[in-house]
Amino acid sequence: MKAPDATFADHARARQANLTKPAGSLGRLEQLAIALAAQQGRERPSVERVHIALFAADHGVCEEGISAFPQAVTAQMIANFASGGAAISVLARQLGATLEIIDTGTLGLPHPAARNARVGPGTANVARTDAMTPAQRDQALAAGDAAAARAVDAGADLFIGGEMGIGNTTSASALACALLNRPAHALTGPGTGLDERGVTHKTRVIEVALQRHANTHGTRSRDPMTALASLGGFEIVALAGALLGCAARRLPVLVDGFIVSVAALAAVRHAPALRDWLHFAHRSGEPGHKHVLNALGAEPLLKLGMRLGEGSGAAVAVPLMRAACVLHNEMASFEQAGVERG
Amino acid sequence: MKAPDATFADHARARQANLTKPAGSLGRLEQLAIALAAQQGRERPSVERVHIALFAADHGVCEEGISAFPQAVTAQMIANFASGGAAISVLARQLGATLEIIDTGTLGLPHPAARNARVGPGTANVARTDAMTPAQRDQALAAGDAAAARAVDAGADLFIGGEMGIGNTTSASALACALLNRPAHALTGPGTGLDERGVTHKTRVIEVALQRHANTHGTRSRDPMTALASLGGFEIVALAGALLGCAARRLPVLVDGFIVSVAALAAVRHAPALRDWLHFAHRSGEPGHKHVLNALGAEPLLKLGMRLGEGSGAAVAVPLMRAACVLHNEMASFEQAGVERG
Repeated sequence: MKAPDATFADHARARQANLTKPAGSLGRLEQLAIALAAQQGRERPSVERVHIALFAADHGVCEEGISAFPQAVTAQMIANFASGGAAISVLARQLGATLEIIDTGTLGLPHPAARNARVGPGTANVARTDAMTPAQRDQALAAGDAAAARAVDAGADLFIGGEMGIGNTTSASALACALLNRPAHALTGPGTGLDERGVTHKTRVIEVALQRHANTHGTRSRDPMTALASLGGFEIVALAGALLGCAARRLPVLVDGFIVSVAALAAVRHAPALRDWLHFAHRSGEPGHKHVLNALGAEPLLKLGMRLGEGSGAAVAVPLMRAACVLHNEMASFEQAGVERG
Repeated sequence: MKAPDATFADHARARQANLTKPAGSLGRLEQLAIALAAQQGRERPSVERVHIALFAADHGVCEEGISAFPQAVTAQMIANFASGGAAISVLARQLGATLEIIDTGTLGLPHPAARNARVGPGTANVARTDAMTPAQRDQALAAGDAAAARAVDAGADLFIGGEMGIGNTTSASALACALLNRPAHALTGPGTGLDERGVTHKTRVIEVALQRHANTHGTRSRDPMTALASLGGFEIVALAGALLGCAARRLPVLVDGFIVSVAALAAVRHAPALRDWLHFAHRSGEPGHKHVLNALGAEPLLKLGMRLGEGSGAAVAVPLMRAACVLHNEMASFEQAGVERG
């Protein structure tokens, strides 16, 4: 994994200084354009071609009653993604983005519109045992890496990873707690919409899972690959693999909300050079997100109280990156426009 | 000026509750769609047709040396807007928005690409005398109202007001101080890029202007129409007129940064019902902006450190409104998609 190209960053910075605007007056849009130029190795960065890989999976921990929605909704939502009625389907259409649905291990029958990368019929219940074997973890990582490879082969300028899986905020919260060495109550939230009592119960389930994780893995319990297998979901592990695969292929990533950020945290702990390839779209309404973002040194572009998942927050932020690119590429310089400098 | 249609808001709220997502999980995008439905009086809100009216003017207070840029830049930037090289030109093209440049009173020769609505050859120096006469203020208000009328006639779904005028943060800061009864140092910032010494000098000039304003107008000094004539710029007054004209015609407005927010504050003080027609795009890097936003009870969509003006921050925020609309209009309901509820 290489670093973004500093020469292109220097060129882009020099170009920004000559555009007809007070220096720095486009704020973070200037930084975005400079970072994308360095990542893409281009004079003129672009995020016109966006690839969204949506990883779905089921979670054994649902048997603890930790979600506001029944587990069957994972498969029902795959059908909704495919037929175009889900939020991410609508947003992908609006952006002209390619949307790929990847089943990394749901219950029930495979959906014909989803790419079959099933690692198992949902994970095991993390409150009782490791979510998956190391071999399953590696299979899920490889499914993510393959999605990154397909995005690059298709000529994508930007990668978005999305997720769907009833119960996956429980898995992600437990994973974040293990990686950040924080107690369950610090990172547990309502997910799709638990009430206070539901959050209290979910917190207790995560406490049990963390205790089990510590007992099973001891001094290895904060190791990211160990934690991914012990507490992760197949879609979360696949996301970690996808992000690593993007960075290895020099494809910038726009990270969505809580779940994807937790996958990013695990992947960055595994390979710190990944961090330079990640943009962060939004701070979600899920309360644990801010701790994960802080650990990543990330300041997202948006804070709109979104907490849907699917990659939807990232999709909503894409036009900000497109604006940054078009301003960088198309604005006149002071010389071209005959405008005096300050 | 009427209120937005509460019946359409109720319908939109009911529709949101049936879409395939956890209740409230699209955060502010849900509120945006509901507000636009009520403002536009439509089942399916839309902001595809955006009209940007960019008001330019010169400021007599420039003779006090309060800007980092020479005054000639106002006219030079009009040429840049017209030839497509300025930030707002690039963004308008990307959005497919109509962009109208309205000269409300610049120095030098009229530019053929700008609509001539010149109230005078720049304002008078607000540190020494009223910026304009009440008749000039009314002429500038009418120029703004006419822009709103043209936007409605052209079928716009959303109005953005932009501004260009070297020296106009001095005028806007003084106006905000008068309206909010705050001292100059609380609201004065670097504008296009003054250094610390420059800001100190600008603050002193604004103090002088405020003292003069208070001496001249006494108990009327916080009256918005009095303050607009005494401390405003022609473009700032025109913006106030445009916002009032949009609300009177039921056209929602996306308010840009500091200058437009000050115009909005004056206009809302004059006609409080205007507030319900305004969306706020971004919190700018200009430090006084937060006080103006607080006074308006406004929480902008973006905070990207932008401080360019021209309507650029509003243009960057348009895709968030478009995402809100398309999600509202195109997502499947639970019934349509066969997805169980939580």
